[in-house]
Amino acid sequence: MMIVMKPGATNEDIESVVERIESCGARAHLSRGDEVTVIGAIGDREHVQRLGLEGHAGVQQVVPILRPYKLSSNQFKSGERSVIEIDGRRIGGEHFSMIAGPCTVESRDQVLTTADAVAAAGASMFRGGAYKPRSSPYSFQGLGQEGLHLLAEAKERTGLPIVTELMDARDVEPILEVADVIQVGARNMQNYPLLAEIGRTGRPVLIKRGLSSTLEELLMAAEYVLKEGNPNVMLCERGIRTFETAYRFTLDIMAIPMLKELSHLPVIVDPSHAPGRRDMVLPLSLAAAAAGADGIIVEVHPDPEQAICDGPQQIYADDFAAYLEQVERAAAVAGKVLSAAA
Amino acid sequence: MMIVMKPGATNEDIESVVERIESCGARAHLSRGDEVTVIGAIGDREHVQRLGLEGHAGVQQVVPILRPYKLSSNQFKSGERSVIEIDGRRIGGEHFSMIAGPCTVESRDQVLTTADAVAAAGASMFRGGAYKPRSSPYSFQGLGQEGLHLLAEAKERTGLPIVTELMDARDVEPILEVADVIQVGARNMQNYPLLAEIGRTGRPVLIKRGLSSTLEELLMAAEYVLKEGNPNVMLCERGIRTFETAYRFTLDIMAIPMLKELSHLPVIVDPSHAPGRRDMVLPLSLAAAAAGADGIIVEVHPDPEQAICDGPQQIYADDFAAYLEQVERAAAVAGKVLSAAA
Amino acid sequence: MMIVMKPGATNEDIESVVERIESCGARAHLSRGDEVTVIGAIGDREHVQRLGLEGHAGVQQVVPILRPYKLSSNQFKSGERSVIEIDGRRIGGEHFSMIAGPCTVESRDQVLTTADAVAAAGASMFRGGAYKPRSSPYSFQGLGQEGLHLLAEAKERTGLPIVTELMDARDVEPILEVADVIQVGARNMQNYPLLAEIGRTGRPVLIKRGLSSTLEELLMAAEYVLKEGNPNVMLCERGIRTFETAYRFTLDIMAIPMLKELSHLPVIVDPSHAPGRRDMVLPLSLAAAAAGADGIIVEVHPDPEQAICDGPQQIYADDFAAYLEQVERAAAVAGKVLSAAA
Amino acid sequence: MMIVMKPGATNEDIESVVERIESCGARAHLSRGDEVTVIGAIGDREHVQRLGLEGHAGVQQVVPILRPYKLSSNQFKSGERSVIEIDGRRIGGEHFSMIAGPCTVESRDQVLTTADAVAAAGASMFRGGAYKPRSSPYSFQGLGQEGLHLLAEAKERTGLPIVTELMDARDVEPILEVADVIQVGARNMQNYPLLAEIGRTGRPVLIKRGLSSTLEELLMAAEYVLKEGNPNVMLCERGIRTFETAYRFTLDIMAIPMLKELSHLPVIVDPSHAPGRRDMVLPLSLAAAAAGADGIIVEVHPDPEQAICDGPQQIYADDFAAYLEQVERAAAVAGKVLSAAA
Repeated sequence: MMIVMKPGATNEDIESVVERIESCGARAHLSRGDEVTVIGAIGDREHVQRLGLEGHAGVQQVVPILRPYKLSSNQFKSGERSVIEIDGRRIGGEHFSMIAGPCTVESRDQVLTTADAVAAAGASMFRGGAYKPRSSPYSFQGLGQEGLHLLAEAKERTGLPIVTELMDARDVEPILEVADVIQVGARNMQNYPLLAEIGRTGRPVLIKRGLSSTLEELLMAAEYVLKEGNPNVMLCERGIRTFETAYRFTLDIMAIPMLKELSHLPVIVDPSHAPGRRDMVLPLSLAAAAAGADGIIVEVHPDPEQAICDGPQQIYADDFAAYLEQVERAAAVAGKVLSAAA
Repeated sequence: MMIVMKPGATNEDIESVVERIESCGARAHLSRGDEVTVIGAIGDREHVQRLGLEGHAGVQQVVPILRPYKLSSNQFKSGERSVIEIDGRRIGGEHFSMIAGPCTVESRDQVLTTADAVAAAGASMFRGGAYKPRSSPYSFQGLGQEGLHLLAEAKERTGLPIVTELMDARDVEPILEVADVIQVGARNMQNYPLLAEIGRTGRPVLIKRGLSSTLEELLMAAEYVLKEGNPNVMLCERGIRTFETAYRFTLDIMAIPMLKELSHLPVIVDPSHAPGRRDMVLPLSLAAAAAGADGIIVEVHPDPEQAICDGPQQIYADDFAAYLEQVERAAAVAGKVLSAAA
Repeated sequence: MMIVMKPGATNEDIESVVERIESCGARAHLSRGDEVTVIGAIGDREHVQRLGLEGHAGVQQVVPILRPYKLSSNQFKSGERSVIEIDGRRIGGEHFSMIAGPCTVESRDQVLTTADAVAAAGASMFRGGAYKPRSSPYSFQGLGQEGLHLLAEAKERTGLPIVTELMDARDVEPILEVADVIQVGARNMQNYPLLAEIGRTGRPVLIKRGLSSTLEELLMAAEYVLKEGNPNVMLCERGIRTFETAYRFTLDIMAIPMLKELSHLPVIVDPSHAPGRRDMVLPLSLAAAAAGADGIIVEVHPDPEQAICDGPQQIYADDFAAYLEQVERAAAVAGKVLSAAA
Repeated sequence: MMIVMKPGATNEDIESVVERIESCGARAHLSRGDEVTVIGAIGDREHVQRLGLEGHAGVQQVVPILRPYKLSSNQFKSGERSVIEIDGRRIGGEHFSMIAGPCTVESRDQVLTTADAVAAAGASMFRGGAYKPRSSPYSFQGLGQEGLHLLAEAKERTGLPIVTELMDARDVEPILEVADVIQVGARNMQNYPLLAEIGRTGRPVLIKRGLSSTLEELLMAAEYVLKEGNPNVMLCERGIRTFETAYRFTLDIMAIPMLKELSHLPVIVDPSHAPGRRDMVLPLSLAAAAAGADGIIVEVHPDPEQAICDGPQQIYADDFAAYLEQVERAAAVAGKVLSAAA
């Protein structure tokens, strides 16, 4: 933590800041410049973060130096990248994962048709929502338990591991019976009790970045899970909110290389929600793969026109094999190979 | 819902859209312009919202016409404004509410000193957090149950109704024993199971706008509570995320008149979190009151330098009476009078 | 400038940074913490800013300490506030200015009717655009020279100083014949040749904040004018671009107190362009005045339904007197009095 | 233009809107729904855009239907894509252009070394700034005329066409002597007199998207050039401003496929300015190429540590050949081939 003093700060102001730092158990380190004085607060991270000097007399600015996350930081693993293994599929490192399936579990026929198609084409895992966070209370909220049973059937049939969303800590038990990867949706990225609960399960988790969360906040969300002893965390970029209205969200492609510099955790990209329309899913998937993403989670439907939810953004199950083939080519440019069962 | 066709859309494209509309139980209404054709989909709101025509052949754009919220809309009460009564204090209409207290409940002494000070100055309600959503799992997470007991003691002593945050649906029972108003934090604004649970309690609720939530999404969050039969909802603007880094969040003062046009629900402003510093709390409070806010929820501490959390933004308990007096003058410009017990 | 080294930075990395700092004529100041080393670069501002150490081996982050503006900073006038005098009207300090007039000069009748109305009600200055920056090349681009003549006539008739926009450095001469205050529009806030040209004229200037410019960038734009020896600069907040689509721009009310802390220059608010609609102009004006703005620049039209440009946001000339009276009450809460000719 | 009436709009309100539409020479088309009435205004685009009905009694919302640009729209060329030819190099269609060179022209040695390196590696054009828009008036503002001479020398030596920025319409003549492509910087994207001036020259132009400009605004800027009879316009995405502070700007990768859907003009990507750091330039370039960009404009320097401006983001001239080779592989995934002299 660096405390930048105002140009007109008095010696009393400076001494008072030093005292506050020392009273918190940290060391103060003065650096008097020609125009301003900067005071470094050195010591235990938690002590330093509690200083609360922003409003102090003579203080112009408080600049954090240490990043607030530890277990998710690159330093924690000394630069080595985490590779998560799920039922023989590897996520991270040189492996590229293709997680595909419908937005929402709607019916037995829809789930199994999609699962068959993505399995045949070589997808790494199967996704589908049984509990759906909907901005309107009048919208379809998912099939719930019944949806989970259909996912279990898809898994039995295709062997694909299942990725599905948990919205409410009170539903954790039924989800654990089916999910190989628990998905935390963008709206729940800062639902801390939920994150801690998932951390305690030890089950792999894919955390979607909140639609206006910074990368640092995403890594702090991962930290809530890691701190409970669960190391199997995947980060997911899915688009952020900006002023641009030509699309629903703006996919932040820069998050891929930046998260890889900040953290050892695998980075997955969702190319479906940001555009909200099918014709942009392929170019965004190619961009993500070429930029070095560790995988993609994409929405696929056998008949998107009849989908209950988010139809326009789901790609046709019939087009999936060709789509996957092209994405593999882009991943190869970044040095990655499709992950499949060993 | 208006469906704008592309300039090159064929008659088949147009007919196919009309068919899809009619198959959903709505009526189609064609309007052929010189350059483009626009098709109105008229009928039941839910049916229309499920059309999913964004990806359809020949469709350029789908423009929603009806607002997706009903119970929170101004039309629902035919323009009449909701006034919520809490222990004799009125929120809304010509009443201006001052909700004051510490960010976090830290100790018996801190809570009671603050409660005495704000009660003596004429505050309408007392606020304080027992459960705290913290972006870091290493930060102080609140006193929990013990904090709730201290709030109960403050209420008994001063008579002020209590506003406190609920973060986890599993904590709803102890919160109900103390809270006159349940607060939903910005990070939980789209925690739909939590909102529905609070809706079922019938207890008044103050919902903070998510830091990148649109006003429409805020009203949809309110809708989740209202739909469960709980009409006692207050909306709270607390700053949104923008590109500007000179402050933590940008207080959206325009939300006040706009929410009042869209909705009958009272609008409260939190002037503390956006700046994150005390010296901006007064000008922002005056701005909010002059713009017609129905109240302010502000952080006050007897000794902010020693606060565990958010010290720099809490105003001194000793300054509170003078602060309140000036805010009342600004509220008077907007035609409002401080709300107190009858 | 503080250079934060990566946790794994080697001694060579550190020495290399120190060398680079010293080779630029600055002094290096090391601060070795438990986890990271921070190096302060102390010395002449320009030298330090050219270090370009962001990509250097072992460097994690470069944190600027000194603000890049000087003449516009509060320190430059040791905390004293600039008061600009224009034809006997004072802008800044305890003076509140009301600058009113049509968006665009359309006709003699429109200009003179509006000028009479705002003069009669007590406005401080008259505004009107002869050259208009329009996002479409097919839109009306202003009356140009003819518009300037009409503004000159309005001034002769009412005695009100004229505020009008300059878009092109090649038009500076005719503008100087009429404008008491030159307006720089939001889209030209970073048009540096234009700013420097205006600086050389010495004429008072009102610089509108770019729609996604930071406050620091606004102050740097002011610096371009001040550096040429023109001290008569007013800053103008007019709304920034955010994700919210309920309004055209989001008025940043926090800019008022923050600019006053950073700078000695007067701060004016434009309440018309952000909402783009008349009914929000009053609450936003009250908010701005209560928050301590030094003035308001508002659009007024005798018959907005027939306005060529931005009709919906212009208030009726007939309503102006009542509007001004209420704004004066809000300004009084912030300790300010309407500025008029001496 | 669709005018959505408020639920409570009266028949008089509706008739008054219809009258206003007809008085502007357009046709009104009523569509009465169960809850709201929508009125279509059909007719000449300019007439319709002048209606100004946003503030009208009973009007809830005005929804534009026609896009405000014509010459830059995809319909204008019936879906055919523009291919611009510059000295034998083709931009657009299946051609991928690599425009490379230093941020700023600093010295003869720097310019020629860089030009030699990028020419040898196979770049399509050479870039370099002689006039530099700098946010600080105290920063180096470019070599001006002398810089232009050095660019001319580089061109003579390597045969590469030159891309350089024009900031001030008064400098157009010397720029025309050297520039094969005139660059309009992000800060000047809405400098309409400058755009029109460039339009009149007929010279190819590359327009950078303003840092918070919508794609529609970018196309309107192109329209200013096209309207003057200059068809040689390239659009350039270079990062937008968002809340994320981990990078300077957020590269909007979605702009690539979206601009291609909206417009026939080529789309170039600048991967250097958004990150402001070299190590992210490659992954962003790969992403842009894979997403279908028509080219990249990248900063290259023989010795970035000594660069006067933006050193950290410039890639090493020595690394350029390897960089270009990898970018070509990503462009191939999108079906494109590097553009070179015929």
